[in-house]
Amino acid sequence: MPDKLYYKLYYWPTIQGRGEFIRLALEQAGASYTDVARRSERSGMGVPAMLRLMENTINPLPSFAPPFLQAGDVCIGQTANILLFLGPRLNLVPEDEASRLWAHQLQLTIADLVTEVHDTHHPVASGLYYKDQKPEALLRATDFTGARLPKFLDYFESIITSNPHSDTYLIGDKLSYVDLSLFQIIAGLRYAFPKTMKRLSPTYPRLIALHQQVATQPRIARYLASSRRIAFNQQGIFRRYPELDR
Amino acid sequence: MPDKLYYKLYYWPTIQGRGEFIRLALEQAGASYTDVARRSERSGMGVPAMLRLMENTINPLPSFAPPFLQAGDVCIGQTANILLFLGPRLNLVPEDEASRLWAHQLQLTIADLVTEVHDTHHPVASGLYYKDQKPEALLRATDFTGARLPKFLDYFESIITSNPHSDTYLIGDKLSYVDLSLFQIIAGLRYAFPKTMKRLSPTYPRLIALHQQVATQPRIARYLASSRRIAFNQQGIFRRYPELDR
Repeated sequence: MPDKLYYKLYYWPTIQGRGEFIRLALEQAGASYTDVARRSERSGMGVPAMLRLMENTINPLPSFAPPFLQAGDVCIGQTANILLFLGPRLNLVPEDEASRLWAHQLQLTIADLVTEVHDTHHPVASGLYYKDQKPEALLRATDFTGARLPKFLDYFESIITSNPHSDTYLIGDKLSYVDLSLFQIIAGLRYAFPKTMKRLSPTYPRLIALHQQVATQPRIARYLASSRRIAFNQQGIFRRYPELDR
Repeated sequence: MPDKLYYKLYYWPTIQGRGEFIRLALEQAGASYTDVARRSERSGMGVPAMLRLMENTINPLPSFAPPFLQAGDVCIGQTANILLFLGPRLNLVPEDEASRLWAHQLQLTIADLVTEVHDTHHPVASGLYYKDQKPEALLRATDFTGARLPKFLDYFESIITSNPHSDTYLIGDKLSYVDLSLFQIIAGLRYAFPKTMKRLSPTYPRLIALHQQVATQPRIARYLASSRRIAFNQQGIFRRYPELDR
């Protein structure tokens, strides 16, 4: 299933967020795409173009939230679902159904981890600011760095360890979109929780090696050095609040 | 793709939880399945059989958490992924790829809602008891019932409203696994937040009608009346804490 489509990605223009998992797959594949909300409103794009497609009067299959992807006639929402669609088209997942289900299962587990990272700074109300929920965030972050995060990292480390086809990748013998997403997780965790990650890293040699392996893929390296890669910041999912990083 | 497989479902035996979304699909389809962790340890089943399959020394594709499903040679985890696999086999989703992606997108949005319901009683630490996070739970539940829940219900109501093929169902002109899951959401919300749901229900006539339509499907009605349907209780995702329901 070769990639012959032109893609339009819709996501918030100033954060990596969940859109970044899609960007990394498109970049690694060298796919043609437009990051619509980052383009100018004058050109008919920008955030207004994204918000219009979330109205069911305009789009019969509207997404609950960004990111979503237009590919030809279809408009697909939910990060893991977009990757399920893109994986075979970008040659970023093995061909057989069992491998694709397994890749998707891992991607959904990554999605669960992403939600838990987000909730470290927004444990009680996603509509309020962090400063309005700091004591609760400290409780949640303490549980996250002490219990939940090691449980997730143990899991992903063990998946690489028990992959009979590779010492580096999660699935089969070559890089998949799930490896790209796990790279993003490690990069984000290092940004948000540098002390915790310094403490935990020796326990997860394969995850650290995977991060390095992805970062040095030629297309990914070029992307990370380009202006297309939005820097980590304090509006995204991974935020650096030192008081949450013990 | 007719259903010729025999299924083994693995999930915690005393709660509906995320396993219930799978049970409802299997029941509606009249599929043959064993709810393994609810069977006796003496027969080689029960919770120990489930926990063994979560060890990567025994299962090369272990799940991070239940539920997971064995179907022939494959073992599939993540609730929405299991339904992605089962949907066509149980004839509970349209055949074309675009419809299946759309169904899966809606199912993943339901999964997000389920996580938010869970976090109303466990906002800061999933490993602690509710009684150890009551003030934080009140904050989270207030945001949930006041802001997040109406946003989700608005969305799903609008999806039925704008379905050109049906006034009742979410996708196409017949019942899909996503309708079964949304039934479970409405049932659970009514259990956990009866006052909130009494207040909100007049705004969502199509969701209420969908719940009724699913509840009166002959196989679902028999299932709900049987001992196979675990009652809602205070260990599941939907819990009735009156102080969280304003």
